[in-house]
Amino acid sequence: MVEVVGTAPTSAMVITKFVYRHSWKTNYINIKGKLLDSITIMKLTIEQQKEIKNQQSQSNNTKRVTAPELEKILYEAVPALDHGFVRVIDYMGDDTSIVQSARVSYGKGTKQVSTDKGLIKYLMRHWHSTPFEMCEIKYHVKLPIFIARQWIRHRTANVNEYSARYSILDKEFYLPTHQNLAAQSTNNRQGRGDILEGDQAKEVLELLKNDAERTYLNYETMLNERYDGTKINENKKGLARELARMNLTLNTYTQWYWKTDLLNLMNFLRLRADHHAQYEIRVYADIMLDTVKKWVPITFEAFMDYRVGGTEVSAKGKTVIQKLIKGEKVLMEDSGLSKREWNELMEAFNLKDKLI
Amino acid sequence: MVEVVGTAPTSAMVITKFVYRHSWKTNYINIKGKLLDSITIMKLTIEQQKEIKNQQSQSNNTKRVTAPELEKILYEAVPALDHGFVRVIDYMGDDTSIVQSARVSYGKGTKQVSTDKGLIKYLMRHWHSTPFEMCEIKYHVKLPIFIARQWIRHRTANVNEYSARYSILDKEFYLPTHQNLAAQSTNNRQGRGDILEGDQAKEVLELLKNDAERTYLNYETMLNERYDGTKINENKKGLARELARMNLTLNTYTQWYWKTDLLNLMNFLRLRADHHAQYEIRVYADIMLDTVKKWVPITFEAFMDYRVGGTEVSAKGKTVIQKLIKGEKVLMEDSGLSKREWNELMEAFNLKDKLI
Amino acid sequence: MVEVVGTAPTSAMVITKFVYRHSWKTNYINIKGKLLDSITIMKLTIEQQKEIKNQQSQSNNTKRVTAPELEKILYEAVPALDHGFVRVIDYMGDDTSIVQSARVSYGKGTKQVSTDKGLIKYLMRHWHSTPFEMCEIKYHVKLPIFIARQWIRHRTANVNEYSARYSILDKEFYLPTHQNLAAQSTNNRQGRGDILEGDQAKEVLELLKNDAERTYLNYETMLNERYDGTKINENKKGLARELARMNLTLNTYTQWYWKTDLLNLMNFLRLRADHHAQYEIRVYADIMLDTVKKWVPITFEAFMDYRVGGTEVSAKGKTVIQKLIKGEKVLMEDSGLSKREWNELMEAFNLKDKLI
Amino acid sequence: MVEVVGTAPTSAMVITKFVYRHSWKTNYINIKGKLLDSITIMKLTIEQQKEIKNQQSQSNNTKRVTAPELEKILYEAVPALDHGFVRVIDYMGDDTSIVQSARVSYGKGTKQVSTDKGLIKYLMRHWHSTPFEMCEIKYHVKLPIFIARQWIRHRTANVNEYSARYSILDKEFYLPTHQNLAAQSTNNRQGRGDILEGDQAKEVLELLKNDAERTYLNYETMLNERYDGTKINENKKGLARELARMNLTLNTYTQWYWKTDLLNLMNFLRLRADHHAQYEIRVYADIMLDTVKKWVPITFEAFMDYRVGGTEVSAKGKTVIQKLIKGEKVLMEDSGLSKREWNELMEAFNLKDKLI
Repeated sequence: MVEVVGTAPTSAMVITKFVYRHSWKTNYINIKGKLLDSITIMKLTIEQQKEIKNQQSQSNNTKRVTAPELEKILYEAVPALDHGFVRVIDYMGDDTSIVQSARVSYGKGTKQVSTDKGLIKYLMRHWHSTPFEMCEIKYHVKLPIFIARQWIRHRTANVNEYSARYSILDKEFYLPTHQNLAAQSTNNRQGRGDILEGDQAKEVLELLKNDAERTYLNYETMLNERYDGTKINENKKGLARELARMNLTLNTYTQWYWKTDLLNLMNFLRLRADHHAQYEIRVYADIMLDTVKKWVPITFEAFMDYRVGGTEVSAKGKTVIQKLIKGEKVLMEDSGLSKREWNELMEAFNLKDKLI
Repeated sequence: MVEVVGTAPTSAMVITKFVYRHSWKTNYINIKGKLLDSITIMKLTIEQQKEIKNQQSQSNNTKRVTAPELEKILYEAVPALDHGFVRVIDYMGDDTSIVQSARVSYGKGTKQVSTDKGLIKYLMRHWHSTPFEMCEIKYHVKLPIFIARQWIRHRTANVNEYSARYSILDKEFYLPTHQNLAAQSTNNRQGRGDILEGDQAKEVLELLKNDAERTYLNYETMLNERYDGTKINENKKGLARELARMNLTLNTYTQWYWKTDLLNLMNFLRLRADHHAQYEIRVYADIMLDTVKKWVPITFEAFMDYRVGGTEVSAKGKTVIQKLIKGEKVLMEDSGLSKREWNELMEAFNLKDKLI
Repeated sequence: MVEVVGTAPTSAMVITKFVYRHSWKTNYINIKGKLLDSITIMKLTIEQQKEIKNQQSQSNNTKRVTAPELEKILYEAVPALDHGFVRVIDYMGDDTSIVQSARVSYGKGTKQVSTDKGLIKYLMRHWHSTPFEMCEIKYHVKLPIFIARQWIRHRTANVNEYSARYSILDKEFYLPTHQNLAAQSTNNRQGRGDILEGDQAKEVLELLKNDAERTYLNYETMLNERYDGTKINENKKGLARELARMNLTLNTYTQWYWKTDLLNLMNFLRLRADHHAQYEIRVYADIMLDTVKKWVPITFEAFMDYRVGGTEVSAKGKTVIQKLIKGEKVLMEDSGLSKREWNELMEAFNLKDKLI
Repeated sequence: MVEVVGTAPTSAMVITKFVYRHSWKTNYINIKGKLLDSITIMKLTIEQQKEIKNQQSQSNNTKRVTAPELEKILYEAVPALDHGFVRVIDYMGDDTSIVQSARVSYGKGTKQVSTDKGLIKYLMRHWHSTPFEMCEIKYHVKLPIFIARQWIRHRTANVNEYSARYSILDKEFYLPTHQNLAAQSTNNRQGRGDILEGDQAKEVLELLKNDAERTYLNYETMLNERYDGTKINENKKGLARELARMNLTLNTYTQWYWKTDLLNLMNFLRLRADHHAQYEIRVYADIMLDTVKKWVPITFEAFMDYRVGGTEVSAKGKTVIQKLIKGEKVLMEDSGLSKREWNELMEAFNLKDKLI
């Protein structure tokens, strides 16, 4: 979960006093003092800032339930990675909506806060999942294409992406900070190991930066058009946009509107805020976890307890745990668990002395 | 589409001056004057009326977009059939939300109303469907079980139904008005023909009414509990609710919360407001069409023009039409169309003289 | 899981030597000796038997992978409850298909059985769920309507149901055996308690039987047509089928084709083969579990270990377990768990002495 | 639709006599004679060829229905673009399965071919879509990433993609042929115009080729590993794969297993085989259309007649057509249609003299 200290992030300026706790803090802590020349913080144009301010200044009357904490950050562009952001654009329902539909109530569905809380916890614990589908949220997200490709695998969501068939993409690409330039893990084929050291890190960053810039420049050349819409050579045609885009690298930023219900959002977050997830998508998941907290605080708490902080134990694992509690001796060899499973089980219960 | 004349329906009383146009008018026009003794209009308990009034009296501030016309009827129980209703409980977005996400805009996405309208029509015409998924609506519906079984076939929606495993169902069942007691169609195996006449109609209504009442009475006997929660025989146990419910007839009313996005709602309405749909589900579809009109008027208009009022023409049908326009002679036998297809085509274009 | 002893069930006769273990054994054990007069075993007409035999006699050549154990029971009507059945109609893929797609392989995807098994277990354990979607199965199921209504809530499946708008339903309704006539649970609002005793059980069965028969008789009267298609009164019209069906009780049998992928099938089975599920749907889930075992035995084993036989532990529960293993004293009051959660945790690990 | 003349494409060789008709013919017709040095046809390694041959040599017995024409090309890699392919890996059902489930039949569901055909056409015409969901197909596809990103927007499918977090991607990128180097359309913001001429075409191809090669080379440098698995510098670590991949361009090939039901496949094909679709995805759609023809020929024919070859006419459009048939004068200005709609309508019916 995300905690903000000091000045809250505002949508359109260089962030100065801003510390995110947990997994993604490294990014902003480091760029705070001295920005690497190749990395500039997410910037919005004057026009975009104005549009956002304009949205934020709305004050409409509604008979619908509202989530006051979420309203406070509505439309705000919370920065993610070097040029990305997450904006909450709209939402439907709050904690009471879950209770209301679980009870198929004529009214608000609430009895009193303590009863509601008990019901929400019960629903979460027993996988009575449909009431959580009764809340809906919509985000506007800016993110690197290779992350967008992971994200889109979650199919139970509605998406409208910026079209590079129709428009020219921004000249913005993701470049990791030094701290995030990790080597390939030696024991996990899809994981990261140590941070790359000095010269190699520098070399990698140079390659990423130069290739992104060159391919973007050639993208403009092929289009015969610059990002600002000016023509390069008045006597030439430009290559079709739907073709030229293929020259861009996968760290180019794209953006989309992404809408989903609370249940499917939690399914997304459970996988993508997990430490097995790729760092770059976790950054987004952490920001979104924070929006869930502001939106449906009771559900958030149950989610953290039962899903994010919880664990699953297999039938064989249950027998092992049971014996351990009874003080019986259990050997991995007799447990039916593989070494990997054994260690996963011991780690889940923080029994470090039992790792083998 | 539904038009209301005279006093608007209010949620909790006998409706006196109320005429619905189109397909479902017959129901209320007739019960207006003299109610059949076995059919009483949807009634809400004092408690339910209070809960609804309570919801309607909310006035929250929000930065979200609102749909003022829809706000006016929010939470209201619009009557459907004899005991059912449709209530809009919550919604997300309006016409501008479609435009906003189609443009992946930072702001409201609107340029000016005429441009927005053109874009929405374009999206509808060319099946660019994802922007319509960016609006969401939630209904509370009371409906007969046999209609609920048709309705639930639309899978891309979120549902929470009143649980007859957990609670006792209300003593309410659907009884058609005389006008809706149609005979089996003789030329369409899943359609209706003429209205049943006098004595037979009376007999059918008696059978429906008596069977529903007797099975409900026996439901209570098996439960050893009356609807109001009082025990029937203090010395007996009651059959489990999850079993006793199996004795109820399919015209018993159930209720649910049903939430979907605008695209899938239109898919539902296109099929269920169609004249091929069963009358009893069309009643609900017509009410919902009216809520779409209040919610997203521009989209509604495009939907009526391109989908509801439009038609599809096959490759072979196109050739026939083309020849007719050129004044060439076309015979069904040479067209590649079956007689049924031929007539469907001629009816679509209102060419009654060409029916065969 | 289901185990069959003695003669395997064949599709179209009175079952004589047939014992299903586990939850649904009671049904068939009891009807084995002496059938209650109101309960007759699922019967197929001569015509239906012939159609099934005809399908079973097919022998086609294919380059596709096959599941030999599943082929053996293909098309067979495995009886469920008193008149229902489950038939496997078609399937796609086997255990190797999961491995193949997880590896995005050009060939069969298998290396050797032990490696495949390890991979499947790994995928199951870490919720890498998409490879399990690469297998598909299709069932033909006959089931009571009130169970069909629970079942249909699983939306990620394809369904075609017998249409009572179009056809006349069979005169078949579910009547529980004495053993399944359970009273309402006193501590779980949606559960069952003890079996009803003698006279009350008899009374309940009589009510169910009589009401089902009377409503069916009146259904025919309204249709002016008997099930076999003969007209009752040549001078009368019949009520439209789409209307007459509303007079039937919820224990009337319906049937459908139901198709889903292996992942969603396991999601269904995890909930519906669970002891919290209603007995009548568990009967079907147990039969289907057995078909999964025949189809994808490696996946079945992993599913039973990690999902069906496993448990989830919340963050707070983990701390309790950890302390218990270390021999520390833990009190429910200090654990942050409610009494209910505490007992669920202790039961999950079979620590009966710790129940409170 | 695709027609093959001469030697059928076999999976793993240079294709010599091979003409695809229709939209994608240009690609292969041209590379037949003289291959551009930067474009080599899809090649499979010896190992991959062996695996495919191995699959094709399977001959299993099954009681399931089979589609003999589809069996003939099962597992075969049909070439698409310069390095891509489409392989049918598995399927479930055939035309009779649609009929079977529409009738909820105990047997094959067929009466006779003519009746089946009539039923399938009826279902297609009246949007009775669920029976088409009863057939399922699975493809193995190799395709450029920018096309994969369009494709994945079709959510009702199951997907397993080659993981560049886990493995190193092949050194293969899409380079268009000269004929496909189209300029940006001047009147359609997301379409193509004329072909680029001589020098500019050459320049564009050079840019695409060089950028793809350089970024791939740097990808290897960052990984400190070549595609064949050899290390580049024994004293260095490699950047994590999940990071290094971001340097690749969007024309890099990826591959996946993609499985869907027939209804959703037709929805995909209707949009992606349409002339508004990007050429590069149409190439794949055309190949898949051909597999549908081999698999379910009756459904294919109905699909081509009612969907692909058909058109939709709006309510206002219907009035225009009706007047034209009656020989009445109609002006665009009075029709309620915009100029664009008017022209779309006239083009749909091939009334070129009425274009304005």
